[in-house]
Amino acid sequence: MVIVMAPDATSDNIDSLVDLVATAGGEAYVTRGVSRTIIGLVGDVRQFETLDLRAMPGVSDVLRISAPYKLVSRENNAERSMVSVRGVPIGGGNNTVIAGPCAVETPEQTLEAARMAQAAGAALLRGGAYKPRTSPYAFQGLGEAGLKILSDVRDETGLPIVTEVVDAADVELVAGYADMLQVGTRNMQNFALLQAVGEAGRPVLLKRGMNATIEEWLMAAEYIAQRGNLDIVLCERGIRTFEKATRNTLDISAVPVAQNLSHLPVIVDPSHSGGKRELVLPLTRAALAVGADGVIIDVHPRPETALCDGPQALVEEDLPELRDMASTLTALLGRTLTAAPQPLAV
Amino acid sequence: MVIVMAPDATSDNIDSLVDLVATAGGEAYVTRGVSRTIIGLVGDVRQFETLDLRAMPGVSDVLRISAPYKLVSRENNAERSMVSVRGVPIGGGNNTVIAGPCAVETPEQTLEAARMAQAAGAALLRGGAYKPRTSPYAFQGLGEAGLKILSDVRDETGLPIVTEVVDAADVELVAGYADMLQVGTRNMQNFALLQAVGEAGRPVLLKRGMNATIEEWLMAAEYIAQRGNLDIVLCERGIRTFEKATRNTLDISAVPVAQNLSHLPVIVDPSHSGGKRELVLPLTRAALAVGADGVIIDVHPRPETALCDGPQALVEEDLPELRDMASTLTALLGRTLTAAPQPLAV
Amino acid sequence: MVIVMAPDATSDNIDSLVDLVATAGGEAYVTRGVSRTIIGLVGDVRQFETLDLRAMPGVSDVLRISAPYKLVSRENNAERSMVSVRGVPIGGGNNTVIAGPCAVETPEQTLEAARMAQAAGAALLRGGAYKPRTSPYAFQGLGEAGLKILSDVRDETGLPIVTEVVDAADVELVAGYADMLQVGTRNMQNFALLQAVGEAGRPVLLKRGMNATIEEWLMAAEYIAQRGNLDIVLCERGIRTFEKATRNTLDISAVPVAQNLSHLPVIVDPSHSGGKRELVLPLTRAALAVGADGVIIDVHPRPETALCDGPQALVEEDLPELRDMASTLTALLGRTLTAAPQPLAV
Amino acid sequence: MVIVMAPDATSDNIDSLVDLVATAGGEAYVTRGVSRTIIGLVGDVRQFETLDLRAMPGVSDVLRISAPYKLVSRENNAERSMVSVRGVPIGGGNNTVIAGPCAVETPEQTLEAARMAQAAGAALLRGGAYKPRTSPYAFQGLGEAGLKILSDVRDETGLPIVTEVVDAADVELVAGYADMLQVGTRNMQNFALLQAVGEAGRPVLLKRGMNATIEEWLMAAEYIAQRGNLDIVLCERGIRTFEKATRNTLDISAVPVAQNLSHLPVIVDPSHSGGKRELVLPLTRAALAVGADGVIIDVHPRPETALCDGPQALVEEDLPELRDMASTLTALLGRTLTAAPQPLAV
Repeated sequence: MVIVMAPDATSDNIDSLVDLVATAGGEAYVTRGVSRTIIGLVGDVRQFETLDLRAMPGVSDVLRISAPYKLVSRENNAERSMVSVRGVPIGGGNNTVIAGPCAVETPEQTLEAARMAQAAGAALLRGGAYKPRTSPYAFQGLGEAGLKILSDVRDETGLPIVTEVVDAADVELVAGYADMLQVGTRNMQNFALLQAVGEAGRPVLLKRGMNATIEEWLMAAEYIAQRGNLDIVLCERGIRTFEKATRNTLDISAVPVAQNLSHLPVIVDPSHSGGKRELVLPLTRAALAVGADGVIIDVHPRPETALCDGPQALVEEDLPELRDMASTLTALLGRTLTAAPQPLAV
Repeated sequence: MVIVMAPDATSDNIDSLVDLVATAGGEAYVTRGVSRTIIGLVGDVRQFETLDLRAMPGVSDVLRISAPYKLVSRENNAERSMVSVRGVPIGGGNNTVIAGPCAVETPEQTLEAARMAQAAGAALLRGGAYKPRTSPYAFQGLGEAGLKILSDVRDETGLPIVTEVVDAADVELVAGYADMLQVGTRNMQNFALLQAVGEAGRPVLLKRGMNATIEEWLMAAEYIAQRGNLDIVLCERGIRTFEKATRNTLDISAVPVAQNLSHLPVIVDPSHSGGKRELVLPLTRAALAVGADGVIIDVHPRPETALCDGPQALVEEDLPELRDMASTLTALLGRTLTAAPQPLAV
Repeated sequence: MVIVMAPDATSDNIDSLVDLVATAGGEAYVTRGVSRTIIGLVGDVRQFETLDLRAMPGVSDVLRISAPYKLVSRENNAERSMVSVRGVPIGGGNNTVIAGPCAVETPEQTLEAARMAQAAGAALLRGGAYKPRTSPYAFQGLGEAGLKILSDVRDETGLPIVTEVVDAADVELVAGYADMLQVGTRNMQNFALLQAVGEAGRPVLLKRGMNATIEEWLMAAEYIAQRGNLDIVLCERGIRTFEKATRNTLDISAVPVAQNLSHLPVIVDPSHSGGKRELVLPLTRAALAVGADGVIIDVHPRPETALCDGPQALVEEDLPELRDMASTLTALLGRTLTAAPQPLAV
Repeated sequence: MVIVMAPDATSDNIDSLVDLVATAGGEAYVTRGVSRTIIGLVGDVRQFETLDLRAMPGVSDVLRISAPYKLVSRENNAERSMVSVRGVPIGGGNNTVIAGPCAVETPEQTLEAARMAQAAGAALLRGGAYKPRTSPYAFQGLGEAGLKILSDVRDETGLPIVTEVVDAADVELVAGYADMLQVGTRNMQNFALLQAVGEAGRPVLLKRGMNATIEEWLMAAEYIAQRGNLDIVLCERGIRTFEKATRNTLDISAVPVAQNLSHLPVIVDPSHSGGKRELVLPLTRAALAVGADGVIIDVHPRPETALCDGPQALVEEDLPELRDMASTLTALLGRTLTAAPQPLAV
């Protein structure tokens, strides 16, 4: 059950509701959005129905939501949401390109990759400082040193930063540098991490678990939302199947299905889906054509020396086609392509 | 190993080669295409190398092909093939829309659906007279009566017919009515059927098995090709995964992967992939954008009464969007949209 | 809906029922078992309910069956069935070992493998004369010559023969030699083949499709049963998953699940599941312990020269352990191990 | 590369090696086992080969290991390991039954379930105080209060405790109560958690990710081992496939495959695999027969009121069969069934 507060509801109104729910043996989770505050109720619905919630001061509406996820469901918000990352919009009629290196390796490589991202029309810079790797012997990322590099490159280029966090204990540190926190596929059901990013005051990019159903993915988003953060962007990145010709099987249908079930924006990662450079542009076309709200793409100035996932990175010569395609397909679907922000004046 | 014959090679030249291969303990499969004849050799490659095949009269080239499939591989033919269905092209730079009812039910329903297909810009009519159904208690199709209905509707509309054959014993009968034979997902490894359609003198639409790897799909095409028929169109129709929100998971990456490995055209069936009407147009956009050579789509005048797969059929009001989208995306990729043929003058 | 006939029902009784059903617009499929005849009705159940079927002469019972499969369901027959293959029982409290070469190659190899099967305690001989192979360039089996070899080896050893048929057109020929017809994993939904073996008058070994659900497998059995043949043994042989360490993933749970849903015997193929010799004995132990009614196992005198699936064949030194294990585990579950028949006196 | 130290190697010997590796640009991870200390080297193997490691004091052997996992591989230790949980052995020729409630709900329910576990022949008590749940609205466990209940029940029954930890931040707290830490299927690639349990000084039960390959599972174990903890037990609990008749598909082959690749004990969870009470005993038989080193099973005094996974819990009347089966099958495979420890004298 979800209580939608009126725009002019006061903190006292909210506190009264939380107390009332507690007396009925339930718990109330308050989520303050840009335009409205909503309160998700956990507990026995029949108990709540004995309370006259609609009559309480500051309440605009009370919704019973049949989906197992509440706050992120389309039933809770029929309009498609727009998430703002340091002023750069994702969703709500905007198509957004995110690009950058899989991993931050050096200041030079990161800056070069950011320039490539700009050439491709990207409005946000991706780059990993903490890399969750299957093998403990593989490159694990530069950690805080990588975050500092990203921060410097943001100053230089103006591109806000999307970067992954892999441990709940690191969330505060990473949020100190990043504009958007990424939760990776292996951590989609790391509930401690989901709750921590839900409280971090930063928008979240939530990748689908490689074997998660769409319903589980939305439930993972609900964990974040429940902690008060509805600035969530879903990212389809391929699921695990028997097919070996691709790294993962891009579940292109997941985009319209998730958009029908949830108001959150849904983007696609064609780089990690296919795992091969020659598939990235075709899959990007498919993603934008199916109606994704954006794409997130690996680029690297010298993929042959990359410390992580080189074979799937786009190179310099691929960028014009990416930019043109994003522009054309965005227009074709009646959307607006998000422009890259200008560097901050010094 | 594949022998490519010169354009002016004679039947005697071919017979001599077949005999020579037999003396070396091998078997030779002759495939006569529109522009050239090729001979696939089965047996011990080292034995064949002792023969001086290139020096034989009429031989243009001898290729060693490393892929497990030979005749359908890109190595055998670097150019993308074009398949002609009673004059209607698929592949070779053409995008083709195939549409029609899942099953032929009545003359009226079939004609109405064919008119819908034309309104959607389709150049070929699909429709099943033999339906392979999981349950022996489900509607199994009208059989030959259905083929006659299709034939009448072809006379009326001019649309060539694509229809499924499920039993090797029926191939001759079905080929007597159909312009293109469809092999369905459950029969992709019914090798007796593949060989029968390979000898039937009709182009073949080969659907991917719902759990087949791309390599197995191309091997199934090779079974058809080996019997002398290279007029094969591959059709991706979704694979079986753990995701339950869709009937199958459309493997959109399979289109560029198969196009890289094989010279055959590759189309997509968005109706059977998603299994839901609201997914058909988004998935069609994805298919055309990724670079498929066409789509095959269920339409039905009254889906609520359909005897088979009603929930996934497009209806009248969806058709303009389908037509416009096919036209726009085909142009965007620099292809030509195949026009519907005119009805034959009576 | 299923009509169970009384033991003393006459042919006239049956004919009358078939006619009655036809007048109600339905179809009646008559299946004559060893102990009773049952009639499966296809059509509108409400229509049948207007007929007073129970009052018709010779009728013992009329069952409404809620499972989508009728004749093979546990609802139709609460007792576990026993299938007899030339006098050798499978199911009904008997555990049966079937062994032999994957493919018949020569008379000597087949006889040697049959002797190995006997040493392992097998009561039936498996061996393929028609091999459905993914590649058209792989060994396809000896065809009728292979059937003759099997027949000779049966005369020599007394072991009844289980062999695969891959084409509906070959069913009569193969049934002329074989004691039990095998339908392979790739043909589980080759409905023409299922119907043909349903009419062939031989017991059938129906392998599960490598991507078929248990429900689809039972529906495939229903196709056979509907043609009058309830002598069906189900065989789990591994499904296709993302795991690459094994050829297929043996779905060991499928055994108790299928036994709960159907009265048919269920055996396991540990050779094709694991695909590796060192996994065959552990998986055989698992199969017998979970409650399978038997196992079917590849053995080969010289696996390194096998034309098909050599790496998974057991060799001479594995046989005593197989025999002891089958004997011990069968006793542990309170079953009887089927003894090998004696050779026919000449 | 792995350095095996001699039994009489000193701490100084180890420190010298760590320093030497550091000077060559590598990292050395020291793992102190009961019988020997091993040092895993990370970095450029060619660099290490220039060092004369074998000549260093205290070194017994230097191994190059080709598997991507080193410390947990069979190459590192040809003998099967035995893990001791407060004196209760798992592996090394012992079969161990672990049983208890899915979730700790009340002191009474937990004690009753522990008594059931004892009646079933279990030597260890399982029970969850922290439950990772797909839905944020589902029961999440009692937290520390649950750990206290488990501790009290251990005092009462003498059964050491296996319990799950879901957050790296909780590891120290949980390790203060638990005898063995469980890492669940959703956290198999939560690398921060793996590293934390690797340093916690408690044996670890590592469940296989529901979509993890066996190789990834062993790599996850390597993360734990690398932090100095080789007391790891692997637990197969079913993988996600297309089959819907069971909650997960128990990958029974994973037991012998993992045992061939790794020296760690491998047990099976038949409760979470099948998800249904009637499958638990058959799957337990399969697990013990295939050669698993034990099983972990849900029991509940009143499953119909369970807060978590009631449908899969065994009840009182199932216990004698479980106990007898474990005893018989353990003997059949030449193993020893681990006896339950006695309660501590007060």
